Amino acid sequence: MSKPTETERCIESLIAVFQKYSGKDGNKSKLSKTEFLTFMNTELAAFTKNQKDPGVLDRMMKKLDLNSDGQLDFQEFLNLIGGLAIACHDSFLQKFN
Amino acid sequence: MSKPTETERCIESLIAVFQKYSGKDGNKSKLSKTEFLTFMNTELAAFTKNQKDPGVLDRMMKKLDLNSDGQLDFQEFLNLIGGLAIACHDSFLQKFN
Repeated sequence: MSKPTETERCIESLIAVFQKYSGKDGNKSKLSKTEFLTFMNTELAAFTKNQKDPGVLDRMMKKLDLNSDGQLDFQEFLNLIGGLAIACHDSFLQKFN
Repeated sequence: MSKPTETERCIESLIAVFQKYSGKDGNKSKLSKTEFLTFMNTELAAFTKNQKDPGVLDRMMKKLDLNSDGQLDFQEFLNLIGGLAIACHDSFLQKFN
């Protein structure tokens, strides 16, 4: 098998990171609120520490939890990653255009 | 600045890979059809070569091109990555449940 490409490594990482945090308690295929907070404070500490409003993570969780089951499945988790990537990409374009 | 986390590296990779292929011709912030085909045949060759139907990439492009401008912006590109990640994640869960 050839060496994975950057895109393949990225897809593997997204799955690995999701499972690392969703596997901590209860339902292994969903992020509970606690697991989501642990993920945000560990994997995205730079983003999280920059937020002035303490309620931002609660609001993010509610907005991401499309089916309101109090947890994030993999699709809802990807929407989080996508949203952050778009924010970074847009700020990158503004800086260099 | 602390070492990037796996999630931060993944977000950087998604932006870097998109810009690597979208920057080849015309509009730098969109993937043209040609750039999309180059991306699929390079970054996701393992997936692409496995497809029996030659029209699959055309259909994927049409489905991903939500605003039908004949190109993929970063959001539409992320939907592609997300779709593939979900397919991999689901097949992973089936194997180990």
